[in-house]
Amino acid sequence: MRYKLIIEYDGTPFVGWQRQKSGLSVQGVLEKALKIALRQEIELFGSGRTDAGVHALGQTAHFDYAPSVDLFKLRESLNALVRPYPISVREILSVADSFHARFSAKQRTYVYRILNTRFPPALNKNRVWWYAKELDVTQMNKAAALLIGKHDFSTFRASECQAKSPVKTLDFIELKRNGDEIIMTIKAKSFLHHQVRNIIGTLINVGNGSWSISDFQNAFEKKDRTCGGQTAPAAGLYFVSVQYE
Amino acid sequence: MRYKLIIEYDGTPFVGWQRQKSGLSVQGVLEKALKIALRQEIELFGSGRTDAGVHALGQTAHFDYAPSVDLFKLRESLNALVRPYPISVREILSVADSFHARFSAKQRTYVYRILNTRFPPALNKNRVWWYAKELDVTQMNKAAALLIGKHDFSTFRASECQAKSPVKTLDFIELKRNGDEIIMTIKAKSFLHHQVRNIIGTLINVGNGSWSISDFQNAFEKKDRTCGGQTAPAAGLYFVSVQYE
Repeated sequence: MRYKLIIEYDGTPFVGWQRQKSGLSVQGVLEKALKIALRQEIELFGSGRTDAGVHALGQTAHFDYAPSVDLFKLRESLNALVRPYPISVREILSVADSFHARFSAKQRTYVYRILNTRFPPALNKNRVWWYAKELDVTQMNKAAALLIGKHDFSTFRASECQAKSPVKTLDFIELKRNGDEIIMTIKAKSFLHHQVRNIIGTLINVGNGSWSISDFQNAFEKKDRTCGGQTAPAAGLYFVSVQYE
Repeated sequence: MRYKLIIEYDGTPFVGWQRQKSGLSVQGVLEKALKIALRQEIELFGSGRTDAGVHALGQTAHFDYAPSVDLFKLRESLNALVRPYPISVREILSVADSFHARFSAKQRTYVYRILNTRFPPALNKNRVWWYAKELDVTQMNKAAALLIGKHDFSTFRASECQAKSPVKTLDFIELKRNGDEIIMTIKAKSFLHHQVRNIIGTLINVGNGSWSISDFQNAFEKKDRTCGGQTAPAAGLYFVSVQYE
């Protein structure tokens, strides 16, 4: 039987989702808990990696396990076992054997939070990008709209990116002011490495007035990472959900 | 000159607002920063204590300082100095000498957050009271309404409470469901020690169905702490704001 997990975590103390030779990973903590709960080695397949410090509300993963299992009890056990860490298994569902957390994904949704105040965050420390200079959200939205559709996103692609092609299709991007925060919601079937953080890090140039919208467009059309803006901090990024067929 | 500070903090790492012989306090950290920034001993007068683990969005305090000072720069300096800690000075304002953070207060607003889900919090660890059993907010609101007005609140008063009288006037109390959370907003000129946490810890008995509304009313009328419910965890409590004349 194949099972799907929906997982929330605070990325602050982790090297990221993916198990690594050293350092604490979300996958590593969960696989260890699964091994204790199910009394066998379990390999978790995540829908996508998240970098160190990136959060998730709805990271999705699957695993296979033959014996019958009470999913309600399994969730309680896993959450008890991971308790020292800021990880929570929100749901466990039984899925078809053809389901794959990564390859069956139709759309991934990320949110990026900017705290746009003169004073730094206290309760939202490690939860937002604190940006003190005033930002023009209307201008940022105009620039963001240029990214919608199928494009070569090389300007926003990390040099370490392992994707075969820099061409991706962006389904949705929108920035909204919510009190002291600016929240960007972005959706695509898949993203390049650092794509979301590089997009918001470049949109900030438009928001703070140092770039015009045509400067942004030119940088985008150059298809060259060195023409883009900074990589925004991991702390503001949230992997919200994955939509499947 | 007298100055008013509006302060946000994550209460998790602190023994509370108030300076103590040992342990890290918000007041202690801020007074140390003020001493460095203003080059003299400064005593901060807070609008009220908060317990260990209790958060603040708008704790208010005042201090006196004779020389002229650039308030914008002072806020920047203080925030840089307290940076290792989850404390943020949101505002510094010049106020009349008659202003007193504690004694001039007309109303204090607190919020209490309950995460009402089967799965534990990850991103909101130390930010909510996680209560897995389903809660009936309508019933909780009916019980809460009995507390509005001037009453003897002994049922909700901590044994260590130093207030002269257990009689307080509750101006406002309301519980609302917001997604997975139940948010209680409560307002009064002043509160007894642990009053908010004891109220929500007793309302939970109504919410989970173990008490009827008349059980709650009886407990309230007994004016006896031993008839009330548990003291809810500090982590769910937020000192939101103080209203002055």
